[in-house]
Amino acid sequence: MSGDSVVTAAVLVIGDEILSGRTKDSNIGLIAGHLTSIGIRLREVRVVPDAEPAIIDAINALRKRFDYVFTTGGIGPTHDDITADCVAHAFGVAIAVDPRAVALMRPWAEARGIELNDARLRMARIPAGATLIAHSIPAPPGFMMENVVVMAGIPEVMTAMLLAVTPRLVTGERLLSETIPVELHEGDIADVFAMHQEEHPEVVMGSYPIRQGESFRTELVLSATDHHSLADAVLKLRIKLKLCSC
Amino acid sequence: MSGDSVVTAAVLVIGDEILSGRTKDSNIGLIAGHLTSIGIRLREVRVVPDAEPAIIDAINALRKRFDYVFTTGGIGPTHDDITADCVAHAFGVAIAVDPRAVALMRPWAEARGIELNDARLRMARIPAGATLIAHSIPAPPGFMMENVVVMAGIPEVMTAMLLAVTPRLVTGERLLSETIPVELHEGDIADVFAMHQEEHPEVVMGSYPIRQGESFRTELVLSATDHHSLADAVLKLRIKLKLCSC
Repeated sequence: MSGDSVVTAAVLVIGDEILSGRTKDSNIGLIAGHLTSIGIRLREVRVVPDAEPAIIDAINALRKRFDYVFTTGGIGPTHDDITADCVAHAFGVAIAVDPRAVALMRPWAEARGIELNDARLRMARIPAGATLIAHSIPAPPGFMMENVVVMAGIPEVMTAMLLAVTPRLVTGERLLSETIPVELHEGDIADVFAMHQEEHPEVVMGSYPIRQGESFRTELVLSATDHHSLADAVLKLRIKLKLCSC
Repeated sequence: MSGDSVVTAAVLVIGDEILSGRTKDSNIGLIAGHLTSIGIRLREVRVVPDAEPAIIDAINALRKRFDYVFTTGGIGPTHDDITADCVAHAFGVAIAVDPRAVALMRPWAEARGIELNDARLRMARIPAGATLIAHSIPAPPGFMMENVVVMAGIPEVMTAMLLAVTPRLVTGERLLSETIPVELHEGDIADVFAMHQEEHPEVVMGSYPIRQGESFRTELVLSATDHHSLADAVLKLRIKLKLCSC
């Protein structure tokens, strides 16, 4: 934990299918939006292949630098699902079929009339010391190993796991944001905007061009933890850009 | 360059807006699919904020480990656009307004009736030694600094730059893929599939569950550089799974 009011996180997406372009990732955006809304700052995302050294290195690099790491993918029943083993390896702990995970999977298997065979029990293999993430979808649980939250790759299942683990997370100050749409090109307001950023160092300001046919318009985004500072900076910028007669 | 037939790459997405969840990235998927189709293996993706140390560290880490690094974002005219400066810093070279870039921007500015003011000339600041990437969209050029390809964040502009730089890239053997859709759960075919992977180590095999209401079906993806090996492994797997009467 960071110990102060800023709580940080990284996302680690695990899967050859994202790197080949076969599957378009949508988990990054889902997790990013959720973390922002609960007061956790997403500071880095990495996508790595289904390869042990790449996964272990990324877990170890990220878990030391950020308060939380959220992984997606690689926790299914097939041979290419190696995330749980990599987490155990990264933490230097054993991994085995966890009776608590089996107990969570049993009603799900019975309802679907499927057998808890060896392949499915692979999904109940949990690193020693991890806590389980039971969730609302009839699928095996995710788990949390210290500050690493391990979730499925299927967006609906990932979302259920993310919502289920949320009450356990330490959160910090929320970053509030306001967007000012401007019917001008970035190049015409850049100077005013840069000067405004200098005058309000406590507010983070970003400019985002939006392509409209052959032309561009701009969205200016101002973010701060203090809503008075934010409102002040937004109003003064609107005045400078002659966006209001106030 | 890797010197053998496998050419590797990383993508570095630069932008607070992706990490806050405000903007959903689509460049990762576009670049991933394109690189796969031209014979470059995307091995890692990172998303970092608009912060100098994070960008410089990522550029230096990735450019040493992979044949190419493709960056997106942070090359506009506003104060939060710092990618070009970070590339110059990472390579330890100077950066200044490049007359070749200004020459490329002049017809674009004239056609749109806009002034090449100081803010817009910021987009012509190119690290010493880089080559420009002129492209089909009326917008400033991208550039290539040794093995680092620097592109815009707007997907249409990024795509134009990616296509424009493609003829300059050294490419390797293409990874061919075939998908076998299976109306079975992963857990029911995992053993057969794992054994099949062991018998065909030259073919990479991945299994991807697709959620359908409360149930799942599966797509098995086999990939190899040699199309005979791929066809052989696909046919034998189809027979094992009783998907054909051959």
